[in-house]
Amino acid sequence: MSQADRCATWLDALRWTQNGLLPAIVQDVETGEVLMMAWMDRPALDKTIETGQTHFYSRSRKAMWHKGGTSGHVQHVEEIRVDCDGDVLLIRVRQVGGACHEGYRSCFFRKVDEKGALEVVAARVFRPDEVYRGM
Amino acid sequence: MSQADRCATWLDALRWTQNGLLPAIVQDVETGEVLMMAWMDRPALDKTIETGQTHFYSRSRKAMWHKGGTSGHVQHVEEIRVDCDGDVLLIRVRQVGGACHEGYRSCFFRKVDEKGALEVVAARVFRPDEVYRGM
Repeated sequence: MSQADRCATWLDALRWTQNGLLPAIVQDVETGEVLMMAWMDRPALDKTIETGQTHFYSRSRKAMWHKGGTSGHVQHVEEIRVDCDGDVLLIRVRQVGGACHEGYRSCFFRKVDEKGALEVVAARVFRPDEVYRGM
Repeated sequence: MSQADRCATWLDALRWTQNGLLPAIVQDVETGEVLMMAWMDRPALDKTIETGQTHFYSRSRKAMWHKGGTSGHVQHVEEIRVDCDGDVLLIRVRQVGGACHEGYRSCFFRKVDEKGALEVVAARVFRPDEVYRGM
């Protein structure tokens, strides 16, 4: 019996959008930092459960993608939570490197400052030009 | 000049869906706990900025709603963050009472356990039948 089969009960409780997607919030399980949000379809969620690493569905490319598959910056899943309505996932992970393709730990590295401008509030943890070299 | 006008620059950087919405993740600024996710249209975001309390757009009711407007469990906005692609908001708040209509501090009060069942991992902070009495 695969892990996905074992989880049939909770998976059946999910309320997918008409497009067959769910928003998945990814949170650093150690620091509580919100790292990113992306979409999962059922195959991406199954693959996430099966491998223990996050997989998502790209709406623009219409394909599943493995987070960190290119950069090595994978996310090891420690816990999956479901919201009260069953239509949002919270995936708590151990993040290798940075979640953001721009080189930051979190995609939410900018805040709105008092003047209404976007201020960078984090330091880069890797150089995108080195990690994504030749791509 | 209103605060919304002052923020024209960062607001113009947002990439709304075709339906004119953005997912907004709400996080407890003190504990880091992810409280909920809901959708904002531009008027809800403007109202959030203007009042300092979260407002969202209900896709089912097709109307703006003031979080805590009924229960008193409002969210005082401390910080707004924007993700790298400008298509997700992270709203960091001081939560009064609980964010979840089921009585919990966070809507993510259930986790998937080792058997693939949903396990409640939080205690209620209010009784929904008392807070929403007569509604």
